[in-house]
Amino acid sequence: MRLAVLGATGAVGRTMLRVLEERRFPADALVPLASPRSRGAKLVWRGREWRVEAPEPGVFRGCDVALFSAGGERSREWAPRAADEGAVVVDNSSAWRLDPGVPLVVPEVNAARIRERPRNIVANPNCAAIQLVVALEAIRRAAGLRRVLATTFQSVSGAGQKGIAALEAELAGAQAQGSPFAAAIAGNVIPCIGPRRESGWNEEEQKIRNESRKILGLPGLAVAATCVRVPVRIGHSIAATVETEQPLPLEAARAALRAMPGLELVEGAHDPLPRDVAGLDVIRVGRLRADPDLPNVLHFWVVADNLRKGAATNAVQIAEQILRE
Amino acid sequence: MRLAVLGATGAVGRTMLRVLEERRFPADALVPLASPRSRGAKLVWRGREWRVEAPEPGVFRGCDVALFSAGGERSREWAPRAADEGAVVVDNSSAWRLDPGVPLVVPEVNAARIRERPRNIVANPNCAAIQLVVALEAIRRAAGLRRVLATTFQSVSGAGQKGIAALEAELAGAQAQGSPFAAAIAGNVIPCIGPRRESGWNEEEQKIRNESRKILGLPGLAVAATCVRVPVRIGHSIAATVETEQPLPLEAARAALRAMPGLELVEGAHDPLPRDVAGLDVIRVGRLRADPDLPNVLHFWVVADNLRKGAATNAVQIAEQILRE
Repeated sequence: MRLAVLGATGAVGRTMLRVLEERRFPADALVPLASPRSRGAKLVWRGREWRVEAPEPGVFRGCDVALFSAGGERSREWAPRAADEGAVVVDNSSAWRLDPGVPLVVPEVNAARIRERPRNIVANPNCAAIQLVVALEAIRRAAGLRRVLATTFQSVSGAGQKGIAALEAELAGAQAQGSPFAAAIAGNVIPCIGPRRESGWNEEEQKIRNESRKILGLPGLAVAATCVRVPVRIGHSIAATVETEQPLPLEAARAALRAMPGLELVEGAHDPLPRDVAGLDVIRVGRLRADPDLPNVLHFWVVADNLRKGAATNAVQIAEQILRE
Repeated sequence: MRLAVLGATGAVGRTMLRVLEERRFPADALVPLASPRSRGAKLVWRGREWRVEAPEPGVFRGCDVALFSAGGERSREWAPRAADEGAVVVDNSSAWRLDPGVPLVVPEVNAARIRERPRNIVANPNCAAIQLVVALEAIRRAAGLRRVLATTFQSVSGAGQKGIAALEAELAGAQAQGSPFAAAIAGNVIPCIGPRRESGWNEEEQKIRNESRKILGLPGLAVAATCVRVPVRIGHSIAATVETEQPLPLEAARAALRAMPGLELVEGAHDPLPRDVAGLDVIRVGRLRADPDLPNVLHFWVVADNLRKGAATNAVQIAEQILRE
C-alpha cells in the first residue's frame, strides 16, 4: 500500500503525516510531495527518512491513495492526473468541492457518498464547515433544519504556516513579513477571510454556506455565516443558531448531540475552548440554549482543531474509508 | 459647577476624566472618589492635582453631577445618597439599569428620556449594548425591527484594569495573578462573560437583551446574544443579524446608517477593526450584507471603543445633556 501526500511540508500536510502515524494508517511506502523549492528536503515518518519530491507525471503511479493539501491551483492541475495514474485523491483544497462528480465528505455525516466518485476524487470540506456540519447533522437527525446562522472565530493556522508565523512575529513585537491578513492580527479581530464578493460576502462565508448544504444534502437550507479571524494559534470556534423544523426540547437536543459520533457535549463549569482542543480530534459543543423568544430556535458553541478534524484527520478518515471498500 | 467621579482610578473612571477634559466639560471642581485603598492618591486633571477620597456621607453635597463607575454594589449603596445630597447620578454599573424609575440612555437614541428621572439617577448601558443599539436604532427608523441576533467579540478591558493586566501578563509569558477570566485569554476565546444562569444564558447576554429592549422602547423585541471574550485590549466587535418589519434594500440601509448620529459606515477595502477604534468615540459599522435566503434580513458588523463610547463618553454625553436642561 503506497500513499502520496501533496503539500507534505505545509501546516495541514505535516498534521496529516502525524495523524497517519497516530492512526497506524496501513501504508508501506510514503511519497511526500511539495513545491519545487522543498524538493530534496527530508522528513521523518514512522522512524524512516523520506525525500520530498515535486509532483511530476508518473509520480502517482502505484499509489493507492493521494492526500492533497497544496492549494486549489495544484489540485486542479494534479488531482485528475493522479486519478488517471490510479490513485484515489482525497483533496483538501476548495478546487473540487462543489463539482457534482466529486463527493464532499465528513465521514460522521455522509461516509456513504465516498463510493460515488466518478472522477476518483473525494473532496475534504472547509475546516469551519466540517465542525459545524457534524453538530448540524445531530440536530437535523432529531428535528430537521430550517435555518442556520454561524459566526466564526477562526485561528491563524487556518491561513497555513504563514498565518502562524504572522501572529508569532507580531506577538514578539516584530513587523510580520508576508502576513496573509489584511491588518495586524495580534490584539485584533478581522471580519474578512478570503476574497470579498460583490454581494459583500467573503469567500469563506460562501464556502460554509455551499459546503454545508452539499454535505447535509439540503441544497435549499438557509445558511448565513460571518467569518472572523482571531488571534488564536490553532482551533476554530463557532457561535451557531439553528431553527429546527420540529420542536426540539433542550433535553432532546442534548441527547441528539451526545449520540453523534465525533462530537462531545461539554456543559457545566468549563466551556469548550480552542486552546483546549488543539491537538485533539474531537469536536466539542457547549453553551446549548433555547431561544428566549422564538420557538424551535437553539443556540450553541462548537470548537475543534482546524488542522486536525478540520483538515488532516477528516482527510485520513476518508482515506481509511476508501481502503475499507 | 462641581463634579464627582466615583471609581476615578478604574479603567472606565480614568477614561471618564480624559473624556471630560477633551470635551471641556464645564466643571470648576472635581471630587474624585474611589475605594478606601486608593484614598489619598493624587490624580492630575486639567493640569491640577486632585486628592482621591473614599465616599462618605456628605461628600456629594454641592455636586451638580456624579459619574459612577465603581461596580453595582457601590452604586446601590451610594447612588440614592448622592441623589439625596443633590447630585444627579449618571451610573455606569448595572445596578439601576432595569429600574422603572431610572432612564437607560444612549443620547443618540433616546436622549429625551433623561428628563424622566424620579430618582435623580440616569443609567449608562452595558458597553456592548450601547454600540449595538445605535446601529439598531438606525435600522429601526428605516424599517422597524422584528428580531436581533448578536455575537460579540469583547475586549479584556471590559473586565476593567484586571482584565488588561491579565492579558498583558499572559502575553509576557507570566501566570496572570487575579485574572477575571475562566481560563487563559491570550491565544484563546472564552464564550462566558458574567455569571451563568440556570437557563444557560450568561449575565452579559441577558444585559444585551434587556437593555436593548429598554433603550429602544421595544419591550417585546426578540433579542438573543452570544457573548465571547477575545484577546483584544480595547474595542468590542459585534456580528449582528436583524430581521426588519418592512423590506429594507441595501442602499436604503446604507442611507439609514449614514444618517445616524454617532455612527460611521465603513465599506470598501478596510473593515472596521477594534484596534483602529481604540481611542475614538465613533461607532463604526461595516460588512453590511443582505441575507442570501431570507427576506428582510440584514447582517452587519459593529465596532467601538468599549471604554469610551461603550462607557465613559456615553456617560459624559448624558451629563452634558443634564446640564443643558
